[in-house]
Amino acid sequence: MSAPTLADLVNHQVRLAARPQGLPGPECWQITEEPVPTAAPEGGLVVQVRALSLDPAMRGWMNEGRSYIPPVGLGEVMRAGGVGTVVASTHPGFAVGDAVSGGTGVQEYWSGDGKAVQRAGFTKIDLALGSWTQWLNVLGMPGMTAYFGLMDVGQPKAGETLVVSGAAGAVGQTVGQLAKLKGLRVVGIAGGPAKCDWVVRELGFDACIDYKAIAPAGATRWDPVREGLKQHCPDGVDIYFDNVGGEILDTVLTRLRRGARIVICGAISQYNATEGMQGPKNYMSLLVNRARMQGMVVFDYADRYPEAIAEMAAHLKAGRMTSREDVVDGGVAAFPSALLGLFKGSNFGKLVLRVADL
Amino acid sequence: MSAPTLADLVNHQVRLAARPQGLPGPECWQITEEPVPTAAPEGGLVVQVRALSLDPAMRGWMNEGRSYIPPVGLGEVMRAGGVGTVVASTHPGFAVGDAVSGGTGVQEYWSGDGKAVQRAGFTKIDLALGSWTQWLNVLGMPGMTAYFGLMDVGQPKAGETLVVSGAAGAVGQTVGQLAKLKGLRVVGIAGGPAKCDWVVRELGFDACIDYKAIAPAGATRWDPVREGLKQHCPDGVDIYFDNVGGEILDTVLTRLRRGARIVICGAISQYNATEGMQGPKNYMSLLVNRARMQGMVVFDYADRYPEAIAEMAAHLKAGRMTSREDVVDGGVAAFPSALLGLFKGSNFGKLVLRVADL
Repeated sequence: MSAPTLADLVNHQVRLAARPQGLPGPECWQITEEPVPTAAPEGGLVVQVRALSLDPAMRGWMNEGRSYIPPVGLGEVMRAGGVGTVVASTHPGFAVGDAVSGGTGVQEYWSGDGKAVQRAGFTKIDLALGSWTQWLNVLGMPGMTAYFGLMDVGQPKAGETLVVSGAAGAVGQTVGQLAKLKGLRVVGIAGGPAKCDWVVRELGFDACIDYKAIAPAGATRWDPVREGLKQHCPDGVDIYFDNVGGEILDTVLTRLRRGARIVICGAISQYNATEGMQGPKNYMSLLVNRARMQGMVVFDYADRYPEAIAEMAAHLKAGRMTSREDVVDGGVAAFPSALLGLFKGSNFGKLVLRVADL
Repeated sequence: MSAPTLADLVNHQVRLAARPQGLPGPECWQITEEPVPTAAPEGGLVVQVRALSLDPAMRGWMNEGRSYIPPVGLGEVMRAGGVGTVVASTHPGFAVGDAVSGGTGVQEYWSGDGKAVQRAGFTKIDLALGSWTQWLNVLGMPGMTAYFGLMDVGQPKAGETLVVSGAAGAVGQTVGQLAKLKGLRVVGIAGGPAKCDWVVRELGFDACIDYKAIAPAGATRWDPVREGLKQHCPDGVDIYFDNVGGEILDTVLTRLRRGARIVICGAISQYNATEGMQGPKNYMSLLVNRARMQGMVVFDYADRYPEAIAEMAAHLKAGRMTSREDVVDGGVAAFPSALLGLFKGSNFGKLVLRVADL
């Protein structure tokens, strides 16, 4: 069953060497290499990784202490979602050549037995529905997060106003486009004019607020998000899909409409804070506005991914939805610097690390 | 229609003289007097106030800026809910001698025309169902807040664990007793052993955590709420009914069960903060635990008060529920000091100011 060339291959890996304080610097990582198994383990697979998803949540996985999933252990290959090709299989559900998606980790080859295949959540993906990188974006975890966060937690109604932060990012781009398709008014928040232009022109949002915008001459207390919300959401915000936390969450809280829903999807502005998270000091707006703030974890919806994938793939195919990925080259060795870029907001679209030909 | 003695009466009033910074000191108040109208205004009432409800929400009403209701204007009689007796009426729905409840303000006599009667929300109360002070507690706004906050926002299920702060206070005592009647495990948080004992022995809570408890000998990092939650809610918290905000909210956030609901009813620990509210820095626990935090304002449920009053009155009558009020004497002149006591937590039970015979 094994592919003839495996014996010659080396698997480069990125392992967690130290837990970070603040931003994860190079001291957090160790690059290792191992031979690639020459055959698939018992009832299992060898998968060649083609591309990896780089996600804000990775920062949380590096911390000690259990969150919604256990932390990555010191010395372990860094956890990551990836897509790739089956190069060896003794698993009844997968054949050599199958395109798959799963928890590959930051390495060039994943291998494991049948139980490990299940734990890593490998599923076959259909490249006729979307490209490799789209399977890490709109058809992958970010897309699923956007879909179930919006539909199940946000409970959108046509005519309502939705605001989404990280609007040009992986989850935000899909949240906003889906909300437009559901008949909502959609306002994004993103950093810089290029992203904001793209969000409005290409994704069709009604407006996008540049949170990095420079104060106009003469402005004393300048808060571009506050000004933007006043201008673009004069009647307030029905749904806020929050990917960033921090000051922006606090500002949006001051502009809620009665009965508003805040979807807590992430807080990228806070993940590297060394003095603890900043809590939303305006949370009593939830009382005044009879509003709610609710968290979600995408894995809870695993049984319903096919429903979401089918809808998103249909939108892609019909040209009703765009999926933008920012693909970084350099292989797994480029992982440490690419991850830092994510926290600086230097990516434009879903950040993907290319590991092999796509 | 007017009572014969009205012409001789003086109405003492407490008016808002200045907006407070921090705790509302004596400089915030002005005591005024006016003659009592000798007859009811057009289609209206004169009501002799017997008792007033003192509520944490009063602190918010003293601030400038609209919240869920407009602020009390400078020079206006301080807003308050009260109970009393109709002493003059030209209103078709009320007769002299009727016991009523409504927004009387901090004064000895309320008077107004038909529209004012409606704005102040006067309703007849049945003293066979509960005493004057119970109509300001379990059968009044605190009871309605407890009922709809728990049932509508908290959505309790038998067997779940509920934690309520301000457990010996007006809302807390009723939340906990109702939750026990609905089959939940109930843990209170209150200040001092006397309140905690009462909550367990008289109200039947399963446990009560004394947030003022002194560290045992040898303890280094002592957080009685954290220790108490570990001991009394070993499997976590399904519903947290929050009346206090601040550190206690943050601690409870670390102990949520999956799918938990936090009812945001108040934040008494924060109302007098001069450096802005403290936000719940552990709010990302909402994500990890797929939990929600939701605010409520009791007035939204006005149409359904009769349903709640009927249920609570039946519980009282059958001895299934206790209603404890801390009645302060001294008339309206005692209002400023009584209100300060509320923010110190020196009241034991619902704080009521007696203005006339009960």
